[in-house]
Amino acid sequence: MDVMTREEIDSFLDEQTVGRMGCHDAGVTYVVPLIYARDGDALYVLTTQGEKIRIARKNPAVCFEVDEYEAATGSWRSVIVQGRYEELDEQGKARALGALAKRHGTRRGSSEGPPPRPIVAFRIVIAEATGRAVRRAPAAP
Amino acid sequence: MDVMTREEIDSFLDEQTVGRMGCHDAGVTYVVPLIYARDGDALYVLTTQGEKIRIARKNPAVCFEVDEYEAATGSWRSVIVQGRYEELDEQGKARALGALAKRHGTRRGSSEGPPPRPIVAFRIVIAEATGRAVRRAPAAP
Repeated sequence: MDVMTREEIDSFLDEQTVGRMGCHDAGVTYVVPLIYARDGDALYVLTTQGEKIRIARKNPAVCFEVDEYEAATGSWRSVIVQGRYEELDEQGKARALGALAKRHGTRRGSSEGPPPRPIVAFRIVIAEATGRAVRRAPAAP
Repeated sequence: MDVMTREEIDSFLDEQTVGRMGCHDAGVTYVVPLIYARDGDALYVLTTQGEKIRIARKNPAVCFEVDEYEAATGSWRSVIVQGRYEELDEQGKARALGALAKRHGTRRGSSEGPPPRPIVAFRIVIAEATGRAVRRAPAAP
């Protein structure tokens, strides 16, 4: 198993699309998948209201995990971030939108009509990031 | 957004390979990817020792999340399980091995030599499972 450098971690975060935020309040741990984009030392997210937001507002010490698993070989990479949830104002929301559009495009825009729940923009400021990788050759036939 | 039935949740859990366990102790939330196999009302895992095991032993109330995201359409499915971490004895370990081998095969076996850290077998007994799905048609060209 290899330990990833911070450079490898950042480029892995930049190539992946979905991560999972883990948050905790009142004895309940909650893990939810989110589309994100990294900009510097933070991960930007635009999402709907819900349990994750309620919990992260109460306890902003969150975990964010991104992984990739190659079923054919059993190779995998995984990055675990410990960070601080910060909700964004209108100016921050514009930055989040910019980072997400730059990374993922703006295909799913207004043509889908208004979202069913209010949109919340937040970022996770990375305090610590660790990455591990296992590379395996394809199995012999 | 559709809410998945328990039947849909079970079949989704059965077709996926990797999930993420969220656990929490002493103010730290930790999310880690794991290969699992469902057998009845529990998810079986065989893994190496490490932070996740240390935390789950202290606080067995864990979350387990499984998702699938289709970048081409933006469709996704996500299941969130709240459950109880239970470490398995030798008999339970055999059951875990059986469930995992049935689901994923036994390709990566002893030919790789001894594992670098002790192997721990556990299951997460599902107390509650919720699933959500968004199905989107491919974008028009």
